[in-house]
Amino acid sequence: MADHTVTFDVAPHPVTVPTGTLLVEAAQLAGVEIMQPCGGQGRCGRCAVQITSGTVRRRSTLRLSAEDIAAGYALACQSVVEGDISVHVPPQEKIERRLTTERTAAEVTVPAGYDPLIHQSVRRYALTLTPPSLEDQTDDWTRLQIALRQQAGIEQVQASLDTLRRIGSVLREGDWRVTATLAASSWDCPNCPARLIDLRAGHIAPDEPLWGAAIDVGTTTVTLWLVDLISGEVRAQVAEYNSQIARGEDVISRIIYASKDDENRAEMQRLVLGTINELLETACKRVKAEPREVVKATIAGNSTMIHLLLGIPAESIRLMPFVTAVNHVPTLSGREVGLAMHPEGVVDCLPGVASYVGADITAGVLSSGMDDADRITLFIDVGTNGEMVLGSSEWLVTCACSAGPAFEGAGMRYGMRATTGAIEEVWINAETFEPTYRVIGGVKPRGLCGSGLISLLAEMFLTGVIDKAGHINVHLPTPRTRLGEHGPEYVIAWADETAIGQDIAITNVDIDNLLRAKAAIYAGFTVLADSVGVPLEMVEQVLIGGSFGKYINVEKAVEIGLLPDMPWERFHFLGNTSVKGAYLALLDTRLRERVRDIASRMTYIELSADNTFYEAFMSALFLPHTDLSRFPSVEAAVLNKD
Amino acid sequence: MADHTVTFDVAPHPVTVPTGTLLVEAAQLAGVEIMQPCGGQGRCGRCAVQITSGTVRRRSTLRLSAEDIAAGYALACQSVVEGDISVHVPPQEKIERRLTTERTAAEVTVPAGYDPLIHQSVRRYALTLTPPSLEDQTDDWTRLQIALRQQAGIEQVQASLDTLRRIGSVLREGDWRVTATLAASSWDCPNCPARLIDLRAGHIAPDEPLWGAAIDVGTTTVTLWLVDLISGEVRAQVAEYNSQIARGEDVISRIIYASKDDENRAEMQRLVLGTINELLETACKRVKAEPREVVKATIAGNSTMIHLLLGIPAESIRLMPFVTAVNHVPTLSGREVGLAMHPEGVVDCLPGVASYVGADITAGVLSSGMDDADRITLFIDVGTNGEMVLGSSEWLVTCACSAGPAFEGAGMRYGMRATTGAIEEVWINAETFEPTYRVIGGVKPRGLCGSGLISLLAEMFLTGVIDKAGHINVHLPTPRTRLGEHGPEYVIAWADETAIGQDIAITNVDIDNLLRAKAAIYAGFTVLADSVGVPLEMVEQVLIGGSFGKYINVEKAVEIGLLPDMPWERFHFLGNTSVKGAYLALLDTRLRERVRDIASRMTYIELSADNTFYEAFMSALFLPHTDLSRFPSVEAAVLNKD
Repeated sequence: MADHTVTFDVAPHPVTVPTGTLLVEAAQLAGVEIMQPCGGQGRCGRCAVQITSGTVRRRSTLRLSAEDIAAGYALACQSVVEGDISVHVPPQEKIERRLTTERTAAEVTVPAGYDPLIHQSVRRYALTLTPPSLEDQTDDWTRLQIALRQQAGIEQVQASLDTLRRIGSVLREGDWRVTATLAASSWDCPNCPARLIDLRAGHIAPDEPLWGAAIDVGTTTVTLWLVDLISGEVRAQVAEYNSQIARGEDVISRIIYASKDDENRAEMQRLVLGTINELLETACKRVKAEPREVVKATIAGNSTMIHLLLGIPAESIRLMPFVTAVNHVPTLSGREVGLAMHPEGVVDCLPGVASYVGADITAGVLSSGMDDADRITLFIDVGTNGEMVLGSSEWLVTCACSAGPAFEGAGMRYGMRATTGAIEEVWINAETFEPTYRVIGGVKPRGLCGSGLISLLAEMFLTGVIDKAGHINVHLPTPRTRLGEHGPEYVIAWADETAIGQDIAITNVDIDNLLRAKAAIYAGFTVLADSVGVPLEMVEQVLIGGSFGKYINVEKAVEIGLLPDMPWERFHFLGNTSVKGAYLALLDTRLRERVRDIASRMTYIELSADNTFYEAFMSALFLPHTDLSRFPSVEAAVLNKD
Repeated sequence: MADHTVTFDVAPHPVTVPTGTLLVEAAQLAGVEIMQPCGGQGRCGRCAVQITSGTVRRRSTLRLSAEDIAAGYALACQSVVEGDISVHVPPQEKIERRLTTERTAAEVTVPAGYDPLIHQSVRRYALTLTPPSLEDQTDDWTRLQIALRQQAGIEQVQASLDTLRRIGSVLREGDWRVTATLAASSWDCPNCPARLIDLRAGHIAPDEPLWGAAIDVGTTTVTLWLVDLISGEVRAQVAEYNSQIARGEDVISRIIYASKDDENRAEMQRLVLGTINELLETACKRVKAEPREVVKATIAGNSTMIHLLLGIPAESIRLMPFVTAVNHVPTLSGREVGLAMHPEGVVDCLPGVASYVGADITAGVLSSGMDDADRITLFIDVGTNGEMVLGSSEWLVTCACSAGPAFEGAGMRYGMRATTGAIEEVWINAETFEPTYRVIGGVKPRGLCGSGLISLLAEMFLTGVIDKAGHINVHLPTPRTRLGEHGPEYVIAWADETAIGQDIAITNVDIDNLLRAKAAIYAGFTVLADSVGVPLEMVEQVLIGGSFGKYINVEKAVEIGLLPDMPWERFHFLGNTSVKGAYLALLDTRLRERVRDIASRMTYIELSADNTFYEAFMSALFLPHTDLSRFPSVEAAVLNKD
């Protein structure tokens, strides 16, 4: 096979590769990082590069226009080297940090009455042993067990081989005074002996912190709270983008990437472990501790994130009939998982319910308290998937609808994440059709994020820029609506106002995407309510978890029919309910039991097997809904306008 | 620091080392293996090399004569490079294989009534699962647990993360028909769930072997029996020298070597793991299986061997007050220990009692059955240490006396192991004082092994070559007794009859060593008997375990006062009782419980804290004993001779 020279303008040296090499592989060889948010499927167009000399064979040109191709653009994940070429790599869209938890830590109150000696499964004991003598040659391990029995009341204890290797030297170094950290039996083995996590020479003051971590592994963001298990206080809150993003933005892309081979699966595991371990490092530095001192961690996250973190194949999650490998992960150790915490420390992954209703949702329900509420509650967490739970202390039903990533700005012509430069709110003048908008960071706009899109859609609908089917009226007396390259569109910002030098517009295609997303979510509500015979109007509170809820405007969300129409005071934004649930389960064994109970109580409704979902979805494809009586406040607003 | 060139005649290239480098380190660098049976302490003299040009600084010249030093001999472990030198490495004494288990497998009968479905803790189940569907999206792991509950009656089961990673693909590969291998709860966690060891696609015939291994890790020899856990049959018996021998012949040398630093400890662990894994390979090859198919192993061995195998520091074993790190090792997995068996397989180290009464002895007591006998029994296992147990079904007392390695031929001028070329039996003509001898392998002799030494000592005593204090009578009318370089000696073989071109003789110093060794052992018997107020004559059977017993002649051992004087029919040789005990514990959970019971029932007497031991030892330093009435048969023989 012939070899070819590939020269990247951003790499110090050209590389030599054989015929048939993918451009992304050549880039990797040259040390050039090319983002593949869709996992190398040629779906997202983010890996476009420009061939400045020579030619490549393009397997797919999805998302490239005829002009793009004429200008030499090619998708790096879909183009094959067949001769010497030079490649220009355009500057990658730099994801700027806009993680509120980094700046303003959430207020967390320690659960009332928290007592580490009663509720915490991991405890620390100062022990004083009788030294051995010729009259008492009891072995070190038995001697320690006797002290634990007599001084801490622990009847049975186990230790790993690694711990057994250390016992002799620690006992002698401490002159037979030691501090032992133990984990009581866990949920998956209630009759098992306690486990010795750590043994240190000498005695430690009882009020010295004992560190634990509550972790939410989100598809986009990983959040970690560092907790003192003695006081129960959250002592540091940190968050960071999940490094897996470079291998796919949504869970499906990541499953596809990870399922390619064992190496990819290991890479995905390494990536997220890298993120968590960096967070551990950062959080520990703030309190002047070492990550090794963290002796317990609880982890919440959707089922895919938990599988990928543990290196468990996730392929079956995305294939019919959509089953996970494991919902209730056994209690693990820091060593097994690969976390930078104490290798013998407890790692407890919270339970999931189904492929698309994971531990982030059970943790969310726990932290929302809806499983213990008298009032009928709707809990929703909207990301790429819309996961929702309806219920009360008596019953819980749940489902997940693949809303798609439209509300995260993905798949939209000018969509983007909620970072600096994103338009987050829009108002349209009902007479001039001129818009006003607010941009995150107060800079020139680069695109629209989810809340901006919801707001825009609502305004366009209420001002008649679009009709109830979402069609743009190009005959309005304004240059803002026009027939663009991709059909009818509405311009929010003219090229000279933007940071990208192009008009920022929304097209009929974009609107269609948004309608499908909101219809899927609303149809989910309908199916849940129907399944238990409770009309949506009877829902007494709507709890919104996840980052989605942090930015949206309820009024606008109701206006487009994304959220059910009810008095605003029934809506509550809970922030990151997943990490909060992990925090509660970290502190209190009863709450850990409760999240397990929640998981087993939740009745999961598989929408792909449900005909009523399709009907509900079709009815919800209109603004706000085919059945306007479901949205009396919107009906009034529309009537008012006319 | 200056560098010097060291040239070994057996190495392809010279090496360059800085001033102060030990010769053994230079040798290692040059790829020259030099044996250090005493662990580099300069005690054994086995690492002697000849400096043919240049000089070295000798820290110690123990075991080198003035002539040796004049000829340039130096101990490689005690000599320091201070200039350019050339070194001649004499051919190392090649340890020839004379492991009877290699040639003639011991007869082993499966315990009567063995039923794997009742007695065996590891079992295999063929399971047929209901495939998942949109109506039943139960996760794989729960689905498997349900099948185990319904089809195998197993209520609770745990799996490692590694196993969880494999479940999904195995279930699908087997089209939802799988064979699961499980370990029931173990002795150290009777209330724990069962553990999933292995999951294979498809069903396996119920009579297909399920492999287990019984392993005795001896200081000198490692023995492994490969067992079919279904039938209970031993299907292969293999043995091999413990590779640790190169780092010390006795347990003390090895502890010293391993305690130097973590690297040495890791090396000792690697060495013995290497031996066991080779044995696993060899044994599995014989039955056409893979080591990975071995799902359970029980391990017996003295406390030092168990510590070194597990990488647990053993230093405290040899230091006052002589305590082990752990006597009852928790149940481990093949992965944790580093064995080539199934990584999830059960590794069960049998319990020890004290630093010098280890799992080899508890296993020996189990296989001897003395713990269940009505008759008072003395069980002995003589190696470097003499370990002994006295008792019956009602009580058990034990002790270990540091007899030293004299009976293994070590520390004697012409002593050697029981390999080809060793004189194993000697007869002396009472009138001419001329000896006759038998050599292992029928070749020219190279030295004397333990049984040869016992036999020689008895004959010399009975023929008056030595008196009851062990002094050689140099005035006898024979050239065989003479005053040699090291004082009085008796020549067993003239130089021209031997393979070494020197007279093979025994000196007063050698005899002194043997007397001390036999006195220590006999004093042990006395202390044990005294401790429970039972006269030695009341012992109804003497069971001799270990390789020591395989070669000795009871009559001669009694004549020198090594064994108590009683009718020969009371003596029984049991062979390798340690591996046999491991085999029994491997098969039957009740026998595993029993060996634990034995360990807890045994009362250990620490001889270094016991004054009566010293007195008994002094009294036993004569042939056969100060108190001749204890040896009536020998008394009669001596009287008969006079």
